[in-house]
Amino acid sequence: MEISIVEGGSITSVPGFRAAGVPCGLKATEDRDLALVYCHVPCRATGVFTTNQVKAAPVRYDQELLARNQEAIQAVVINSGYANACTGEQGMQDARQTAALVGEELGLETEAVLVMSTGVIGQPLPMETMAAGIKKAAVLVQEEQTAEGGHQAALAIMTTDTHPKEVAVRTLVGGTPVTVAGMAKGAGMIHPDMATMLCLMTTDALVSLEVLREVFRQAVEVSFNAITVDGDTSTNDTVMLLANGLAGNVEITANDLDDGSAPYEAFSQAVGYVATELAQAIVRDGEGATKFVEITVRGTRSASEARQIAKTIAHSPLVKTALYGEDANWGRVMAAVGYSGVKIDVERLALWFGDLQLVRGGQPFDVDEERAAQILSQKDIAITVELGLGHGEARVWTCDLSHEYVTVNAHYRT
Amino acid sequence: MEISIVEGGSITSVPGFRAAGVPCGLKATEDRDLALVYCHVPCRATGVFTTNQVKAAPVRYDQELLARNQEAIQAVVINSGYANACTGEQGMQDARQTAALVGEELGLETEAVLVMSTGVIGQPLPMETMAAGIKKAAVLVQEEQTAEGGHQAALAIMTTDTHPKEVAVRTLVGGTPVTVAGMAKGAGMIHPDMATMLCLMTTDALVSLEVLREVFRQAVEVSFNAITVDGDTSTNDTVMLLANGLAGNVEITANDLDDGSAPYEAFSQAVGYVATELAQAIVRDGEGATKFVEITVRGTRSASEARQIAKTIAHSPLVKTALYGEDANWGRVMAAVGYSGVKIDVERLALWFGDLQLVRGGQPFDVDEERAAQILSQKDIAITVELGLGHGEARVWTCDLSHEYVTVNAHYRT
Repeated sequence: MEISIVEGGSITSVPGFRAAGVPCGLKATEDRDLALVYCHVPCRATGVFTTNQVKAAPVRYDQELLARNQEAIQAVVINSGYANACTGEQGMQDARQTAALVGEELGLETEAVLVMSTGVIGQPLPMETMAAGIKKAAVLVQEEQTAEGGHQAALAIMTTDTHPKEVAVRTLVGGTPVTVAGMAKGAGMIHPDMATMLCLMTTDALVSLEVLREVFRQAVEVSFNAITVDGDTSTNDTVMLLANGLAGNVEITANDLDDGSAPYEAFSQAVGYVATELAQAIVRDGEGATKFVEITVRGTRSASEARQIAKTIAHSPLVKTALYGEDANWGRVMAAVGYSGVKIDVERLALWFGDLQLVRGGQPFDVDEERAAQILSQKDIAITVELGLGHGEARVWTCDLSHEYVTVNAHYRT
Repeated sequence: MEISIVEGGSITSVPGFRAAGVPCGLKATEDRDLALVYCHVPCRATGVFTTNQVKAAPVRYDQELLARNQEAIQAVVINSGYANACTGEQGMQDARQTAALVGEELGLETEAVLVMSTGVIGQPLPMETMAAGIKKAAVLVQEEQTAEGGHQAALAIMTTDTHPKEVAVRTLVGGTPVTVAGMAKGAGMIHPDMATMLCLMTTDALVSLEVLREVFRQAVEVSFNAITVDGDTSTNDTVMLLANGLAGNVEITANDLDDGSAPYEAFSQAVGYVATELAQAIVRDGEGATKFVEITVRGTRSASEARQIAKTIAHSPLVKTALYGEDANWGRVMAAVGYSGVKIDVERLALWFGDLQLVRGGQPFDVDEERAAQILSQKDIAITVELGLGHGEARVWTCDLSHEYVTVNAHYRT
């Protein structure tokens, strides 16, 4: 399947979508802190949200809204600086009011507007500041635009991210060019047990709601749900996909899903590609991250066992600090496998750093420290564990644990 | 019940126990690295071991030995520098050989000797070095001794510990003075799901094996199993209690256990006191720790739910870095409660830092940032979470996550 990357692309690389990112005083800096994404026609929408029981108001608001309306979304407003989490009934009112303000400015029903927030927990949204920002952004999204609006939106949703995360690709769906794009913010608090962080994806594909949901669910599973930075799960994590249907392709429907038709496969691959690129970008930009680590576990009785082991390794502070120190401390990986909760047979365990096998049959195999050090000096590191118990396999991406992670998180609110 | 602390006490404060700690070249430094503890009469012994499936050879060796012999232990040899984990069949042979060498030097059956190891995983024990160290230590433990031998043993078992951990107490058991003492090493890799780290406790109480096991099991549950440094579970963790029966008290038996008799209670409290002091000392000396944090969770449906929530908070890198930064980021505690896996009712959730209530009914209550900052500037911090769902309660001790933790663990092997 042919996927071509749109150079310098953004969510506004998708025909019909416009965006703005403005500074309005929500962040202590003068950086952009409010993003608005708009489409002049109704979009089908699907979202995956945090599994944390302490859900931020915008998460609850969007979940309730999407339960009523998944067919006619026209705008998404995203603020940084304030999470609007643990803010009680006031928080729900503020989320609703935020959507209403966007609706007023753009001449839309409140019900056509979704909201996302990221930032500090427990402080109420400053609604006057929000209103001023929304007014400013609404003017911009009604003007003719290039990719620039998308880039500015991607900047506005950042918190401790060191750079914006955007990707746009084109593919052919039944011979018709279709675009899929997305932006995301990540950094800390990224954990695969949940809906991850803030991500908004857009497409002009014409696709039934059922297919949209299923394609997105699968894409999230192998991308955002396969990454972890520090194992914490946020109150606000939200990933969303809007489809405006303007590409003019023959609609992808449940029949395509059942048949795995070529148009379905092409669309699914493009969505998966964008989601995976954004998810990996989040890990690479994990707070203080100096290494990108791919952990593959195979030979378990099931995929879920493999995932459980991979996540345990990915969450181990001892493994993560050793990777930061470029120390081939494979014993810590072994120890993590041992306490993962999955029943193993130590004598069948094998372990590789890159293509260097370190453990076979549960025992040190060929510990060439020099080669191990060379492998660990790379920015990208692959760890593979083979259990020899079955055909289960899973892959998780994570980063190391550095001094900088501690610095960033010790004083996040100040 | 009267417990008096033995000033400057050590495991050799218990009549009948002798100890030595010698440098023999297992560590890269010239520090003491081999400890030997000896009693001239047979001791009853009980141990709790790591739940990690990747168990070091000394753990498997001791488990097998104690399955055959819990009534006639006379020596424990502990080395630092090498964990003797992931060393295969050679590791088991080396553990057995270590015990045999001690037996030869002290004129004991091999079966009377237990072994413990701590250090780097995956490298075989240098047996010639071990033999030389054992010979040296065996001479010392056969001489007349003061507490000094105990102190030297406590030094020899240290790895990244910044100071030795020892405590000795006296109590009256049925009118007879009884001593309980212990030494421990900890630092990283301490996690309450398991038997924790290396700890050897001694007592001269005369106590049946059944009671010894039950008292120790209970003591470990509320001490070593209630602490966590980084959530990692080691391959080597072992806690052990030896009782030589020399105090001359009326033997504490299963009847005392059933009745909760005064002698049973006095002994149980003394063992619990020593275990708790050592466990807390381990947390205070956690790698890079600058804060000692007591997390109390109450109002859950069961104690196990409370423990699950407390551990989730204690393992959260975001909570731990905020505590290091003295940032009253209570939202991160809320988020950890939310992803703990225990079903909660957010609207009943209350939260305190020290005696300052920050959350009531799931919402910010009285966030006096100045008082919060003052509380967080202390070395000892208490976090309390009330769920309002029942009468379950649990307490866990942990430390913060600092730059120093990363430094210590990035280059542990080098």
